[in-house]
Amino acid sequence: MALRTLGPKAAAALDEELMSSGAFSIDQLMELAGLAVSQAMYALSPPSKTPNILVACGPGNNGGDGLVAARHLFHFGYKPTIYFPKQTKNELYGRLRTQLEQLKVPFTDDFVGEAKRTDWIIDAIFGFSFSGEVREPFPAVIKALAESKVPVLAVDAPSSWNIDSGPPDDGPGKGYNPDALISLTAPKPLVKWFKGRHFVGGRFVGKEIANKYEFDVPPYKGSDQIVEVGSHGEKL
Amino acid sequence: MALRTLGPKAAAALDEELMSSGAFSIDQLMELAGLAVSQAMYALSPPSKTPNILVACGPGNNGGDGLVAARHLFHFGYKPTIYFPKQTKNELYGRLRTQLEQLKVPFTDDFVGEAKRTDWIIDAIFGFSFSGEVREPFPAVIKALAESKVPVLAVDAPSSWNIDSGPPDDGPGKGYNPDALISLTAPKPLVKWFKGRHFVGGRFVGKEIANKYEFDVPPYKGSDQIVEVGSHGEKL
Repeated sequence: MALRTLGPKAAAALDEELMSSGAFSIDQLMELAGLAVSQAMYALSPPSKTPNILVACGPGNNGGDGLVAARHLFHFGYKPTIYFPKQTKNELYGRLRTQLEQLKVPFTDDFVGEAKRTDWIIDAIFGFSFSGEVREPFPAVIKALAESKVPVLAVDAPSSWNIDSGPPDDGPGKGYNPDALISLTAPKPLVKWFKGRHFVGGRFVGKEIANKYEFDVPPYKGSDQIVEVGSHGEKL
Repeated sequence: MALRTLGPKAAAALDEELMSSGAFSIDQLMELAGLAVSQAMYALSPPSKTPNILVACGPGNNGGDGLVAARHLFHFGYKPTIYFPKQTKNELYGRLRTQLEQLKVPFTDDFVGEAKRTDWIIDAIFGFSFSGEVREPFPAVIKALAESKVPVLAVDAPSSWNIDSGPPDDGPGKGYNPDALISLTAPKPLVKWFKGRHFVGGRFVGKEIANKYEFDVPPYKGSDQIVEVGSHGEKL
C-alpha cells in the first residue's frame, strides 16, 4: 500500500492552515523542510564520497527550502554551491542568503557549467505550486537537469513536472526523471511516474490534520526527520 | 580534552550576533534547539519505555525551547504534558503554545503533582541568562526537581545553577543534579559540576564563529543534530 498523495490544491490549503490557525511561521516550517532535504542528501551520499553539491533554488518556497538545506549541508561537511538567479525582495529569502554568505558558501550564475563539475545536484526550483510555465532563466536549467549525468535530488517535485499528471510531454523537462526525490509532508500525485529513491520529510503534521487532508503521516522511525519509502510512496 | 565552554556573556553576545548580522530569526534557532532537545530525550529513553514527559517551561527562551521540544516529542510518539506558568504576551510563545494546543497536548498548573506521575521531566525553566534569583512560582518547582525520583533532562543549564559557578549552596536548587543535560551550541562553565549524561545540540554555528567566541564546534556525526559527550564535555 502506497501512502496517499496530497494534490496541489490540498497542499496549498494545508500550508495556509498551518500558518493561520496552526500558528506556524514560515521560518519554522522552512527550517524543518530544509533540514529534511539535507538529511535525505546525506542518506543518499555522505560528504566523504560526494563533497560538492550544487543547489538550484527557484524564486518561491521550494527555493527557500533549498537555501536552508544548503546551510545544513555545509554544517554536515559538504561544499555546497548555490544557483539562485531570481532573487526577490522577500525578507526571509534575503536572510537565508545572508546566513549562507556568513558561512562563505559560494553563489554561481553559471548553473550549466557548474552542473558538469559537481557531485550531486539538488533541484529546488519549483514545488507544488508550479503553474505549468517554465519562465526564464529556468528552461536551460531544467534542460540541463534532464540531460545531467550527475545525479539529481528533487525537492517535492521534479521541476517542470505537473503536480497531478507528472512528466511533461515536451519542453525543457522532457525526459527528466531525477535519481531521487524528497516529498515534503506527503508525496504528490506525480510520484506515480517517479522511478528513483524516494524520501518523505517535514515531520510537523499530526494524524488529525493528515486525516482532514486525506493523506497519511509517513512511517517515520524514532526521532528521524526523514523516512525512505518506495518510488511511489510504498512502505519499505 | 573537554570542549571549551561558553560563558553567559559570550552566549548572550553570540545570540545577539546570530540574530543581527547573522540574519537568523528566533523562530529558526528555537526550532533547531527544541528539535535537538527532543532528540536527546529520545536518545535517553524512547516513548515505548517512557511515554509520559513533563516539560517545565520558564518565561524566556529556555521555556520556548521546551515548548518546541514538546511538539516534536508528540510527533515521536510521546505523551508530553506542559507546565508553563509565566506566560508572557510574547507573540512567538503564544504561537508555540497554539501549535501544542492544536495537537491537544495538555497543559497543567500542578507541576509538583504531575512530577510524581510522569516518566521523565524536562527542565526548560532557566537558561544561560539566569540572573541568580528564583522568582515565584519556580522555587517549589525547583525544589521538586532537586528531590525528584523521576529522571530529569535539563536544557542548557540545571535551573537555579549559576552559569559560571554551578550548583547553589542553598535555596530550592540545593542538591539538584539532573540525570541528563543538553547543552545548546556549546557547554556552559557549569558542566564542571555536572555528573550525568550530556548531549550537545543546536548545530547552526560554523568554525569561524566558534573561534571568535572561543568555543569548539561539537563532534557531530553525519547529519545528526545532537551528539553525546562526557559529563564535562569530553569527547566520547
